[in-house]
Amino acid sequence: LDEFEQIARLFRPLAFGAPEALDLMDDAAVIAGRPGFDLVITKDAMVEGVHFLSEDPLNLTARKLLRVNLSDLAAKGATPCGYFLAIAWPPGCDESRRRLFADGLRLEQLAHEFPLLGGDTVSTPGPFTASVTLLGWVEAGRMVKRRGARDGDILLVSGVIGDGGLGLQAAKGELDALGADAVAYLADRYRLPTPRLALSAALRDHASAAADVSDGLLADAGHIGEASGLGLTIDLERLPISPAAALWLARQADPVAAYAALAAFGDDYEIVCTAAPASLDSFVAAAAEAGVGLTPIGEARVGQGVSARWRGRDVALARTGWRHV
Amino acid sequence: LDEFEQIARLFRPLAFGAPEALDLMDDAAVIAGRPGFDLVITKDAMVEGVHFLSEDPLNLTARKLLRVNLSDLAAKGATPCGYFLAIAWPPGCDESRRRLFADGLRLEQLAHEFPLLGGDTVSTPGPFTASVTLLGWVEAGRMVKRRGARDGDILLVSGVIGDGGLGLQAAKGELDALGADAVAYLADRYRLPTPRLALSAALRDHASAAADVSDGLLADAGHIGEASGLGLTIDLERLPISPAAALWLARQADPVAAYAALAAFGDDYEIVCTAAPASLDSFVAAAAEAGVGLTPIGEARVGQGVSARWRGRDVALARTGWRHV
Repeated sequence: LDEFEQIARLFRPLAFGAPEALDLMDDAAVIAGRPGFDLVITKDAMVEGVHFLSEDPLNLTARKLLRVNLSDLAAKGATPCGYFLAIAWPPGCDESRRRLFADGLRLEQLAHEFPLLGGDTVSTPGPFTASVTLLGWVEAGRMVKRRGARDGDILLVSGVIGDGGLGLQAAKGELDALGADAVAYLADRYRLPTPRLALSAALRDHASAAADVSDGLLADAGHIGEASGLGLTIDLERLPISPAAALWLARQADPVAAYAALAAFGDDYEIVCTAAPASLDSFVAAAAEAGVGLTPIGEARVGQGVSARWRGRDVALARTGWRHV
Repeated sequence: LDEFEQIARLFRPLAFGAPEALDLMDDAAVIAGRPGFDLVITKDAMVEGVHFLSEDPLNLTARKLLRVNLSDLAAKGATPCGYFLAIAWPPGCDESRRRLFADGLRLEQLAHEFPLLGGDTVSTPGPFTASVTLLGWVEAGRMVKRRGARDGDILLVSGVIGDGGLGLQAAKGELDALGADAVAYLADRYRLPTPRLALSAALRDHASAAADVSDGLLADAGHIGEASGLGLTIDLERLPISPAAALWLARQADPVAAYAALAAFGDDYEIVCTAAPASLDSFVAAAAEAGVGLTPIGEARVGQGVSARWRGRDVALARTGWRHV
């Protein structure tokens, strides 16, 4: 399976006949401007053994790779337009494994109807490595930035927090004491996070700032605060958690430290955002209509950094999320 | 040097203050449409030990990475707009090596005035790996495609052919018999190919189809033929070669096989293109005015595949360029 056969068999079908992709037979793709819209562009890379486990099947890896990029688009209020893919295949990655990877891409593309537009495949002696550059459309000037939070805004988060980090532990077999159902649920949340594209329109209409939760709630809320020149306060007891995370919490000696740990975990791919108090009710209602829970968890104030409270009292944070090196 | 310090010190300066980059503090970049223009997008990846030598300094690697992507834009008649970068740093890649890489990026960006718009940096246990997604502007509908060649068109190539492949051999110390000057020239051509952005306007105005020569002249001409549904014939004795390649040629027993080898080598990053016979003179003149030599080397005809002639007689080709796996 040389490069050209690989493109023909595995990747050309993923272009969905999009004219921009030129059947993946050209040096580049060409995207005509869409009057009244901006392009939102994000790029994320994943390395075997660093961002996913070597034993994870490649279709799941492909799906997660697209999902983490879709999560960035969702946070910006954008809608997927298409993507570019670079893959470095290690030795021994035969056609069946490559096909498995392509199958995973296809499933995610079908779910959100966007084509593969181009890319590059190379060989590597090292671990499997892939990067995606995902493009999305957003109405001109309406991308939701990190830097838009204002003094007095409410801090909110979508879905539940902490499942990503617990899910990694569950996938490694470290949480078997929680029971098979909780382990399966958490590991699945880690392996296949749900990008909150359903929230895009509500974010555009109501959020003053937003980011997705990849480095951890505390770190990503901190990014909003830093970009906006404000401090953020989080009420730990208000964090929305899943029933499986509640099982884990019940086994922790110190509930404050446990909630702080959930807020520091990465890989949740929820949306953390801010909104003016006056638009809170309509924001939460619009999110609910889109099928996404949205929970107020704190506020933005003049100041800097992220601080935490437990039932109204300040608590010290040991760390504010994962810092990748 | 954690991820955020790295962004602040090494990469934010490369954004050149472009508003689209949002100071590299957001999840994504946002690019406003430019009325009357299309976006041309290309993506290429490089792996240490596969696409460059492990002993190559990282500033040269960075420059080549951008240049091979710029070469794709040049072939499409586009002008650089900005780029996204994913890097996987191996263990032991300290701040000074990272800074060297950033210095190389900066030099190429300054030469063609385009900003870094976003990306991702991760760690890897394996070899250094990087991918670039480069965006360019082209007047709406005027991207030069591979699929535009017509029956009777002249086949042309820019600059000289074969230096890339000979340069790899020279860099490995396999061509010392050619003398130090030739070795230095060829190795430099391999390490720092010149993207033919100067040719962009002439290509838009005169070429019916174009591709850059990365896989080898025969293979990349073949891509034009395949995409256009035509066959291509190349007159090997017309291939433009450098004085250093002429030194090498003079030492080869079989000149036909030697020319065929030059045409099969990869990594030249010249432009192979087709043009109607009626526009040949004005095309060559426009290229010359832009400082780029353009040599007619064959023609496009009804048929398929690439065939070669030597002084008017058909010759068999052993292979049609590199096929990456």
